[in-house]
Amino acid sequence: MGRTIQSLERAAAVLRLLAGGERRLGLSDIASAIGLAKATTHGLLRTLQQEGFVEQDPGSGRYQLGAELLRLGNSYLDVHELRARALVWTDDLARASGEAAYVGVLHQRGVLIVHHVFRPDESRQVLEVGAMQPLHSTALGKVIAAFDPVAHNEVMEDELTAITERTVTDSGTFARNLELVRARGWASDVGETWDGVASVAAPIVDRRRMPVGAVGITGAVERMQIGSDLDPRLVAAVRDCARSVSRDLGAGRF
Amino acid sequence: MGRTIQSLERAAAVLRLLAGGERRLGLSDIASAIGLAKATTHGLLRTLQQEGFVEQDPGSGRYQLGAELLRLGNSYLDVHELRARALVWTDDLARASGEAAYVGVLHQRGVLIVHHVFRPDESRQVLEVGAMQPLHSTALGKVIAAFDPVAHNEVMEDELTAITERTVTDSGTFARNLELVRARGWASDVGETWDGVASVAAPIVDRRRMPVGAVGITGAVERMQIGSDLDPRLVAAVRDCARSVSRDLGAGRF
Repeated sequence: MGRTIQSLERAAAVLRLLAGGERRLGLSDIASAIGLAKATTHGLLRTLQQEGFVEQDPGSGRYQLGAELLRLGNSYLDVHELRARALVWTDDLARASGEAAYVGVLHQRGVLIVHHVFRPDESRQVLEVGAMQPLHSTALGKVIAAFDPVAHNEVMEDELTAITERTVTDSGTFARNLELVRARGWASDVGETWDGVASVAAPIVDRRRMPVGAVGITGAVERMQIGSDLDPRLVAAVRDCARSVSRDLGAGRF
Repeated sequence: MGRTIQSLERAAAVLRLLAGGERRLGLSDIASAIGLAKATTHGLLRTLQQEGFVEQDPGSGRYQLGAELLRLGNSYLDVHELRARALVWTDDLARASGEAAYVGVLHQRGVLIVHHVFRPDESRQVLEVGAMQPLHSTALGKVIAAFDPVAHNEVMEDELTAITERTVTDSGTFARNLELVRARGWASDVGETWDGVASVAAPIVDRRRMPVGAVGITGAVERMQIGSDLDPRLVAAVRDCARSVSRDLGAGRF
């Protein structure tokens, strides 16, 4: 419906380019990657720089993403209702499980992490808010793919790339796995994304019972499993948390 | 120098509008705030929505910032050299001082927090990465204003607004305070931004000895002060950290 603005689409393409791969690129590299003349690309970059979306390294003249994106991304988090409601419950989840807790939402055919509570120990951990996870191999992603029709269509269209030896890459097997996720109300990932790391996740729904995201925990397989099964107390803790956040978002109890 | 692209400037204005104040706005509100016709504004919003920079609430039809900004903001952090170099040193600083540690850079006449290490205790704390702090009342801001000529010009042009009763609002007094900051190499904030909260910060310089940001700690006045003075061991810990990060960025030892 309706026309979109070409210069804005091109500017978004420049930002996506700088967000992936090389991350510091010269004018010529950007122009040829976007498929535009250097003069046109320079006009885009100059305006993006003026607005703080792009910075130019004074030494090399190369371009990189700008600080304004961090400020705006933080404002996005401030306004994010799911994240606001999840803050307290995920703190409790991390404490109860002893593992790192995450909240993710569907974004660009993947899971965008909007909240991350560190594992409650003294270890050094890197905050993953703003990072992306695959839909087809992570517990958060499988929950979203199982319960969100848009995500389901996207993941079934995409190729299921092997990330570890345990990643499910056959679409028939994957579709049956999603049916199981829907039937039991939670998903797991045992070494399918990171070797030796397991996750459990459950869906968060809003007042209309529409899926709006997923919450889960991630930790070493040795702590997450009892024998070859996921520890049922951890599964229960994740599902309790998902229900609490959903209730806080206005979902009914049943 | 050179022309900029008007539709991009307008799109940036829409995003800034949604990042401040109301944060969820209808088409008419946005159009009148930006000073554009509704049809023009709708074209901007439609393209911003298509690119993930803006989301529309299905119930109310109001617009808010989109998830793509969080993903791009996270990519900005990944490429940020100062932050990367500061990770280990600020962990040590938080552990040594027992207080929360921050790294800030100049952005839009303020301090943008690019890294935050929680105070090492069990209390609930909110991550402030991406948040802005004032230049004239915080320790990080005063360090940046004292050592970065651009920031210095900006802060001296702006009105020094009172945030607490202790905020310095007289520009002559403030200018003399910045001279002291330059002379001793660190800055403090005792209740000038948050009642009962004190900060200490020191400058980070790069291989050309240019100021690129500041690192500091923030905590309760009762812990940060001995009598009416800042605890000199805390000041030393902050300055040690700033020197270490600067050395890691290639600054000479002297």
